[in-house]
Amino acid sequence: MEFWVKRDCFYKAISDVSRAISLKTTIPILTGIQLIASEENLTLVGSNSDIFIETNIPMMINNEKVLEIFETGSVVVSARFLIEIVKKLPDDVHVKINDKKLVTIKSDGIVTTLNGFYADEYPKLPRMDEVASAKIPSSELIELIKQTTFAVSRNETKPVLTGLNLLFQEKQLTCAGTNSHRLAIRKLPIEATLEGSYIVPGTSLNELSKIMQNESGHIHIYITECYIIFKTNSLILYSRLIEGIYPNVIGLIPKDTKTVITIGTAQLLKGVDRASLFATEGKNNRVNIKIEEGKKLRISSNSTEVGKIEELQNLKVVSGQQDLSISFDGRFLIDALKAIKEEEIQLSFGGSMRPVIIEPIGNPNFLQLISPVRTY
Amino acid sequence: MEFWVKRDCFYKAISDVSRAISLKTTIPILTGIQLIASEENLTLVGSNSDIFIETNIPMMINNEKVLEIFETGSVVVSARFLIEIVKKLPDDVHVKINDKKLVTIKSDGIVTTLNGFYADEYPKLPRMDEVASAKIPSSELIELIKQTTFAVSRNETKPVLTGLNLLFQEKQLTCAGTNSHRLAIRKLPIEATLEGSYIVPGTSLNELSKIMQNESGHIHIYITECYIIFKTNSLILYSRLIEGIYPNVIGLIPKDTKTVITIGTAQLLKGVDRASLFATEGKNNRVNIKIEEGKKLRISSNSTEVGKIEELQNLKVVSGQQDLSISFDGRFLIDALKAIKEEEIQLSFGGSMRPVIIEPIGNPNFLQLISPVRTY
Repeated sequence: MEFWVKRDCFYKAISDVSRAISLKTTIPILTGIQLIASEENLTLVGSNSDIFIETNIPMMINNEKVLEIFETGSVVVSARFLIEIVKKLPDDVHVKINDKKLVTIKSDGIVTTLNGFYADEYPKLPRMDEVASAKIPSSELIELIKQTTFAVSRNETKPVLTGLNLLFQEKQLTCAGTNSHRLAIRKLPIEATLEGSYIVPGTSLNELSKIMQNESGHIHIYITECYIIFKTNSLILYSRLIEGIYPNVIGLIPKDTKTVITIGTAQLLKGVDRASLFATEGKNNRVNIKIEEGKKLRISSNSTEVGKIEELQNLKVVSGQQDLSISFDGRFLIDALKAIKEEEIQLSFGGSMRPVIIEPIGNPNFLQLISPVRTY
Repeated sequence: MEFWVKRDCFYKAISDVSRAISLKTTIPILTGIQLIASEENLTLVGSNSDIFIETNIPMMINNEKVLEIFETGSVVVSARFLIEIVKKLPDDVHVKINDKKLVTIKSDGIVTTLNGFYADEYPKLPRMDEVASAKIPSSELIELIKQTTFAVSRNETKPVLTGLNLLFQEKQLTCAGTNSHRLAIRKLPIEATLEGSYIVPGTSLNELSKIMQNESGHIHIYITECYIIFKTNSLILYSRLIEGIYPNVIGLIPKDTKTVITIGTAQLLKGVDRASLFATEGKNNRVNIKIEEGKKLRISSNSTEVGKIEELQNLKVVSGQQDLSISFDGRFLIDALKAIKEEEIQLSFGGSMRPVIIEPIGNPNFLQLISPVRTY
């Protein structure tokens, strides 16, 4: 295996696939990046065994030669050292592997030798079944992921809750995340032949939204037996699926509400953010909300040791019962409000012991639910 | 005590004095900022008992009213909460303290109450003796500090080596830092009536260079029995002095050299930085340097487990003995080269077991020394 490549292309490809690699892995070969030089291109793969990220460098980009393959072949080489070396090299990089998997990287008089791993010991990529697929503009998919992944559970005791539920049904994608105290549901009309319900690790989708946030165009989604595959023109992310049955979250949404208010999103976010300052001192991060004078919202928190904070905000609309006092985990409220782009939101309460429904005004495709915390 | 203040002025002052405050302190009152409202201004003080930082907010800035004192007085209030609250408040801030040291902070309908400490329990500021002083342009003092503090020891077993030696003598300031493996000495002609040799903690000078890096004008230096005081128009930093005798570092500089080379600073820095990649795998971070063909420098390092790197760089001038092979701690070389602004440097070697002298070409006021590491 031997090739010449432009530094910037090589560095970007290494950076992209490195995102899949965990420094904490106990499997030595997974600390490495797999390089595969074929007749057509150079393929790079990184993995932590749950996620694989694959990218390809073609021979030409914008009519400029960026790659030349002198000899095909493959090797696995330490991601940490490869990224640091390539970052510090001048423009052109020449890579050659000898029989003993010694990787020699040359650039402008600088000669580096790295001990590699044999590529045939590297885990195999899942095979792609291209029959059924979904096609989604990447900006829309990334927005949907950002508006739901934050809500998933970080607690591994219920594995299904660490994932997002992606439901492909009748040309619509419904994405739901919950940690059983809060819930975020987002719908998106899509082009799809794909049908079914899948649970995808929240961590995988976070990575996806990071590596694909500068991608224009569409993301294609495929499903294999154990994997979901996201594919753009330049990158492919394979993520393991979580086995199990996702809870019926739609059924959790309360039907009857007693009090409905409308308020500015940014204004409420600022108030809750301030109140959270003292709330973080307690165990459950409690921020108190109270409707006053039928038109104002009192936001407060206190910590006996440190102090207290309170403020009154004007409400746009109040309908239904006008006395309400309820407490929430401030972090859940902040996450929920940050996920909303729209200027105004509607909060629907069923009483101080029932979850609140949070919906942006003018967007019927996004709904969140937060359970209150007890006030003692 | 009661005052009104513009948010931005208050926030900057709080941020500045907070730099002195350690989150790790075991003395509760030192987690706070002392606020002193007098007839003329508002004074803020932060301290970790080694350093005090003091700043004053005047009534007017650029003909704009920024402060109004309704009642004089003083209190100490949690730095962590004060900074977070003021950061999140709208423009105007109204502060009032009641008899029970409860601090009420109001801004635009937002009311915060913080439990304070009585100000008379706060440590007293050292008294300033304004008889002898030195006056230095702040940019020059900060450069001098940055070019020497990195060289001090982080090991507390020899306290004097954790400090920089400031020697005021015959209208010249000589500043020296060493950890006994490397040495940096910088001289600066100054206006001064101050004379004497003082040892100032490196950490204090690091803070000084950070908080004063945007200050224009001059820094005045005063000495009290146990403190050194740095004063600008808006800030005062008081630092405890380290007791003890500083070693005679001038005597350590070798007089006779066998090989002298000249090389580009940035070029050598890049090479050593690359070579350090593998050097960090070993215990002593060893980067090898070798003169070859009487005009080239070979820079290399290797790690048996990971790999090796080497490169050849052109030398501008080589004089004296032309065979030399020596190894250094790569981090010491990188620190030394980063401290130099000049384009070219001269390295003077006395052999592979003797320290190298590093001097910028064209600047006789800056000299560094690095001891080699043994090659086995």
